[in-house]
Amino acid sequence: MKLTYTGKTKDVYALEDGNYLLKFKDDVTGENGVFDPGANTVGLTIEGAGRAGLRLTKFFFEILKEKGIPTHYVDANIEEATMTVKPAELFGKGLEVICRYRADGSFLRRYGLYTEAGQALDAFVEVTLKDDGRQDPPISEDALDMLGILSKDEYKVLKGLTQQIGNVVKEELAKKGIELHDIKFEFGRVGENKQIVLIDEISGGNMRAYKDGEYIEPLDLEKMFQ
Amino acid sequence: MKLTYTGKTKDVYALEDGNYLLKFKDDVTGENGVFDPGANTVGLTIEGAGRAGLRLTKFFFEILKEKGIPTHYVDANIEEATMTVKPAELFGKGLEVICRYRADGSFLRRYGLYTEAGQALDAFVEVTLKDDGRQDPPISEDALDMLGILSKDEYKVLKGLTQQIGNVVKEELAKKGIELHDIKFEFGRVGENKQIVLIDEISGGNMRAYKDGEYIEPLDLEKMFQ
Repeated sequence: MKLTYTGKTKDVYALEDGNYLLKFKDDVTGENGVFDPGANTVGLTIEGAGRAGLRLTKFFFEILKEKGIPTHYVDANIEEATMTVKPAELFGKGLEVICRYRADGSFLRRYGLYTEAGQALDAFVEVTLKDDGRQDPPISEDALDMLGILSKDEYKVLKGLTQQIGNVVKEELAKKGIELHDIKFEFGRVGENKQIVLIDEISGGNMRAYKDGEYIEPLDLEKMFQ
Repeated sequence: MKLTYTGKTKDVYALEDGNYLLKFKDDVTGENGVFDPGANTVGLTIEGAGRAGLRLTKFFFEILKEKGIPTHYVDANIEEATMTVKPAELFGKGLEVICRYRADGSFLRRYGLYTEAGQALDAFVEVTLKDDGRQDPPISEDALDMLGILSKDEYKVLKGLTQQIGNVVKEELAKKGIELHDIKFEFGRVGENKQIVLIDEISGGNMRAYKDGEYIEPLDLEKMFQ
């Protein structure tokens, strides 16, 4: 087992059978010691954060598997905080794909002239580049195609999967009286036919969720699914 | 003749026949006394800047008229620095539509991970909201539609016109050995059938142009077309 990548919140090991092992760490992103899932730096370490994130990820990835929605998931070991995944190729140097149900966060900061906090958005999809140095800029379908990151046909698949998976998460949260405002995903290409599948994780840090009008912190959200 | 709007670089008067008169002012945008066409504040006053901008605008709008490309242009009076235009309705509170032929400016700042200065871009179109307070954020076709600013069908027309007009300007500049990197336009809806037409101006401040690898200042560019 060989360490191939050290991420902010996960380490990646290559397995002998060609799959990869993701080790969920207790390091969480944030600034000045405050947990902020949107931040690009590791802010602090919280005992058990890795396992909590993996537990929610396993919960959702197994529902997606049952529904036949493609992901990189093979299996997970909560005790060890590890998840086995199929090898996937990133789009360019990595994208984040956001699905929005209520105006919040960067959408509100950008489009506040035309929307207000909490306005219903119908599974609105947008893509940003993973580029810490340039504050993860938004990018259009045309630009993704022109820069050779993602073809127009792939964009259609990506958008469809994003809405499908977003809706699954939204429904699961709704069963506990929780409302999903937005969620971000990562996708990659898997196998010889370059199938587009969900990769990375679906944990509390990937989404903004509210209960009775109150924002739920990622770790609290994860506890609600134990 | 009634003053209906005072802009940063133009005043707008309502005419009795229903058209409008745009008065090009000598105020130019910039910061700390330096002319910067991309700035959102008036930086300084340059004697003759209004007439110079109008002269280039008239030159391009008359070429577009000959080619049957729709604009709001009726006629212009260089001496008075005024242009008569048809009444047009903005998209939302106003959009800027950019057509890019070489990677430069905000495109480069956003997508520098995937492109380098001067990379050829094939009449790439992107839209930003006119919103000084939010630094004119970029917005996608999907978001324009969802927020009720522009329908999907209108977007197709807008994109097509932008590339058509961009190409006209590019060719006119090329005749003088000038290379167009990018240009920004404004569009509006005119008449009962809400036809999408080019509005505002096409002056030096709307584009980035280079000759022999050197950037040409807006006023110098305008002089080259006298």
